[in-house]
Amino acid sequence: MRKKNVVTIGGGTGSFVLLTGLKKYPINISAVVSMADDGGSTGILRDELGVLPPGDVRQCLVALSDSPEILRKLMNYRFENGGLKGHSFGNIFLSALEKISGGFAKGVEEAAKILDVKGEVIPVSNDDMRLSVILNNGNILEGESQLDHNEKVRRIGVKNIKLKKQVKANQKALKKIKDSDFIFIGPGDHFGSIMPNLLIKEISQAIKNSRARVVYNCKLTNKKGQTENFDLDDYVSDIEKHIGKDRVDFVTYNIAKPPRELMEKYKKREGKNVLVGFEESKNPKRKFKLIRADLLTKSVMKSEKGDANSEKRSFIRHDGKKLAKVLMRILKK
Amino acid sequence: MRKKNVVTIGGGTGSFVLLTGLKKYPINISAVVSMADDGGSTGILRDELGVLPPGDVRQCLVALSDSPEILRKLMNYRFENGGLKGHSFGNIFLSALEKISGGFAKGVEEAAKILDVKGEVIPVSNDDMRLSVILNNGNILEGESQLDHNEKVRRIGVKNIKLKKQVKANQKALKKIKDSDFIFIGPGDHFGSIMPNLLIKEISQAIKNSRARVVYNCKLTNKKGQTENFDLDDYVSDIEKHIGKDRVDFVTYNIAKPPRELMEKYKKREGKNVLVGFEESKNPKRKFKLIRADLLTKSVMKSEKGDANSEKRSFIRHDGKKLAKVLMRILKK
Repeated sequence: MRKKNVVTIGGGTGSFVLLTGLKKYPINISAVVSMADDGGSTGILRDELGVLPPGDVRQCLVALSDSPEILRKLMNYRFENGGLKGHSFGNIFLSALEKISGGFAKGVEEAAKILDVKGEVIPVSNDDMRLSVILNNGNILEGESQLDHNEKVRRIGVKNIKLKKQVKANQKALKKIKDSDFIFIGPGDHFGSIMPNLLIKEISQAIKNSRARVVYNCKLTNKKGQTENFDLDDYVSDIEKHIGKDRVDFVTYNIAKPPRELMEKYKKREGKNVLVGFEESKNPKRKFKLIRADLLTKSVMKSEKGDANSEKRSFIRHDGKKLAKVLMRILKK
Repeated sequence: MRKKNVVTIGGGTGSFVLLTGLKKYPINISAVVSMADDGGSTGILRDELGVLPPGDVRQCLVALSDSPEILRKLMNYRFENGGLKGHSFGNIFLSALEKISGGFAKGVEEAAKILDVKGEVIPVSNDDMRLSVILNNGNILEGESQLDHNEKVRRIGVKNIKLKKQVKANQKALKKIKDSDFIFIGPGDHFGSIMPNLLIKEISQAIKNSRARVVYNCKLTNKKGQTENFDLDDYVSDIEKHIGKDRVDFVTYNIAKPPRELMEKYKKREGKNVLVGFEESKNPKRKFKLIRADLLTKSVMKSEKGDANSEKRSFIRHDGKKLAKVLMRILKK
């Protein structure tokens, strides 16, 4: 049987978790990755070296890498002192490769060879992509990193996001979407990782026109000031504004309950309705098939060196293995 | 026939040139590398991250690497802007590997695997090795980088160098020297690259006791304030102070003349007797066999980006291929 062509759309930790789970299955994976990140180590490299943002691509490369453990560890290593403090080694690696190979896309290809990557990691655009965050009071914040680091976002709330300037899609991303059997959107940060991809008109148009079946891996939690009080239908409807009404064929939805302690922490920070809800009766006409399953990770993020209270570093996250298992069942439908 | 075991002793560009030439021959190469460097990108990483100096090791790894061109290019790439400006990517790579693999020697081993290195690159010591430069007026400058960057060196002149504190040799270096058939000392900067290795007592003792034949690849040029007016016998005698009288079995010596223009430039900077001379009659009792040959490179260093006057960037240097050819003839003796 022909291997299925699967395109994932996202960025950040969500894509990392998903790809880590998918890696072992016999499918052709193309990971299309948002290029809107401008914070942290990535933001510094972007500003200082004039490179494209390496962070999200790095995480996807590591997730799909078959190289020895040490090389993958190296890619995620963060320097702790001096002028390199806070920089991820992998980001520096991708930026240097961009410089010497004459372009980010080419650099990512070379990195994929060095890291023995299964499938392909494809930056959604090769242009300098920048996000604008429109607040509920009409003010505009420039940069994706504002979402998580500007307290106005939590206080005033986000009305919408847009691209500062429309960009061209990466031709390879368009081709992979066109040739795909399945498109997995998410999991991932709604405004930070998912939507920046769909804001590129060529990308959302390509998904609309593709013969692929679309799966949305619904977020687990809402974010205060961003997707406060969103439920499953709100996320789907926001996505379908771009890729077309009823374009989503399947939605995966977690039904496992996070530990009470973790819930309390999240509620305190993100609001009462932090868990993404689903109300059967709200929309009897919805067309997508809902797949409910336990998709929750039980593993706690490893505490970093010098992290006194490692228990605080656990998150409500998808379990890559559980999610991949559910998705592979959908692939057989 | 059993492959010959060859140990090279040095550091910096000299070792790079030699190893590049030796790589294609069927011999077992162990490159023992000075760890005294504390200038430039290496010096910053050493100070800020508390790592051992990666620069010289990096050059040797690249010289012996069989990995694709792009990976070798990457190792030597230097950042041109921002907080990373001046850093060599390869130095950052080795420093990160040292951090995650729990030690410099282990990090170098991992790097050698990733870079598909032929032979072994062995840091001469795993200790924090620091050089002191004693000037002719008795003053002491701390740090190897003083040699080329403190104008007092050129004005007052170096009387000698020593290790700030005696260090332990890397056990692997000692074993390789013990098991070697040939030891190639140099080419390389006399005080900056060669002597720091020999100042480690265990190393010079191991060379002394080894059954290997010792070849000294004599420097081409003298350095003002450091080895001003040295001739071949002065270099050999300085080395034999550490490894024992008449311990050097062969000396390779260049007889080709550098271009006049280049000579003028060197004379202006390093003094009239910049070319290392040899006077047959000076010492009729010398025991080593002198091999005279054209060992001079004709290639001009590639001009760097933004380097207006590339002609100024040519150097009087060994040609790795010519030198290796001569050395392979010695191996058959």
